[in-house]
Amino acid sequence: MNEIANKIKVIAFDIFGTVVDWHGSVSREVEAMDLGVDAGAFALAWRAGYKPAMQQVMASGEWVILDHLHRRILDGVVADFGLDSISEAERQHLNLVWHRLDPWPDSVAGLSRLKAGFIICSLSNGNLGLLTEMAKNAGLPWDCILCAENFNKYKPHPDTYLGVVRTFALQPGQVMLAAAHHGDLEHARNCGLETAYIERPHEYGREQPKNVAPWSANTLHTTSILDLAEQMGC
Amino acid sequence: MNEIANKIKVIAFDIFGTVVDWHGSVSREVEAMDLGVDAGAFALAWRAGYKPAMQQVMASGEWVILDHLHRRILDGVVADFGLDSISEAERQHLNLVWHRLDPWPDSVAGLSRLKAGFIICSLSNGNLGLLTEMAKNAGLPWDCILCAENFNKYKPHPDTYLGVVRTFALQPGQVMLAAAHHGDLEHARNCGLETAYIERPHEYGREQPKNVAPWSANTLHTTSILDLAEQMGC
Repeated sequence: MNEIANKIKVIAFDIFGTVVDWHGSVSREVEAMDLGVDAGAFALAWRAGYKPAMQQVMASGEWVILDHLHRRILDGVVADFGLDSISEAERQHLNLVWHRLDPWPDSVAGLSRLKAGFIICSLSNGNLGLLTEMAKNAGLPWDCILCAENFNKYKPHPDTYLGVVRTFALQPGQVMLAAAHHGDLEHARNCGLETAYIERPHEYGREQPKNVAPWSANTLHTTSILDLAEQMGC
Repeated sequence: MNEIANKIKVIAFDIFGTVVDWHGSVSREVEAMDLGVDAGAFALAWRAGYKPAMQQVMASGEWVILDHLHRRILDGVVADFGLDSISEAERQHLNLVWHRLDPWPDSVAGLSRLKAGFIICSLSNGNLGLLTEMAKNAGLPWDCILCAENFNKYKPHPDTYLGVVRTFALQPGQVMLAAAHHGDLEHARNCGLETAYIERPHEYGREQPKNVAPWSANTLHTTSILDLAEQMGC
């Protein structure tokens, strides 16, 4: 086994965009509702409310889970798209699309291989209920689901990255964060974790390819979770 | 599907004694250390410190995870058994025996069947790291690991039972606690949960059979997790 694989005990995964395809999944459900809107634009608008909503929670000091933030944002997006006629029951159902996100094609196979060599867990801003139902729907074989709700802090607060370290009574260098977002990885690195970037060029849809160029500060640069398994000797 | 199976969405399991055999597992490891003590009595003494230690934490208001309580109790038991020569490294290793507890013979098969019909999770006073490593070692197929550490309260505090309910945004009657302890089930029932008793007559060893007589207040009385799966139509 290589040196990095030898010292890592836990690999924590960012979820939205890294393990599951939120843009494709949300777009498909909105498209199927036949609302006469650009489903891809609807998905992007919904997701765009995510960071400001979490920042507001962190500033307020009062904890709100992501399911509830998703619903607040949804109501705004529905109004912006002129869809006020969508019923309460439809909104409740649509809001849970985040529990039903499809994994990227390599996710289940890659995680299953990594599980043989490491503890694999989530480290997501999604809530426990959301992530549990997502894992069950998508077949994600987590050893443990960890998230913002465990630590009452949203990423990128250090308590989230260091929360994984403390949960398993490890040193920061024994934990690796795997994510499709260089910013998330940078915050983890500042806490002493190792980092693996995962290319997800179509996170925002095929029409809006993302720059997936490597950052040299990351421990590993990978093209998929299967590639990460390969590089970690699994 | 029968009426009870139809309304239940989540089955939460007590762990120590219910899913895993703490007495047998601890006894076997102590026996293998060849310390010249009664390994079964050692296991019982260690476990006897469990409830008072948790009650002390709850009274103090300052959170301490079970790994640390186990270690405090262990040091006392080691002294009581005249084993002060046990090294620090041996104590650290022995303390993690709780991460390595063996499941009862029906646990993995029963949980696997139940997982097809319900969300299955732990609800234990063990900490997240302990329960994750136990699940990995024993092959327990949880959808989600929940425990005292999620709610900063030890069972039987209502926040633990209701914490499962809230995690999945359910009504109390949609959650069932499965446990080998009538007291645990009674507290869950007082919070509105459904309850399933699981007979574990040898929880304290074959020499000290436990009274596993039914209590009529429980929703179900079962002889094993496989029997629970059967009764729940899985």
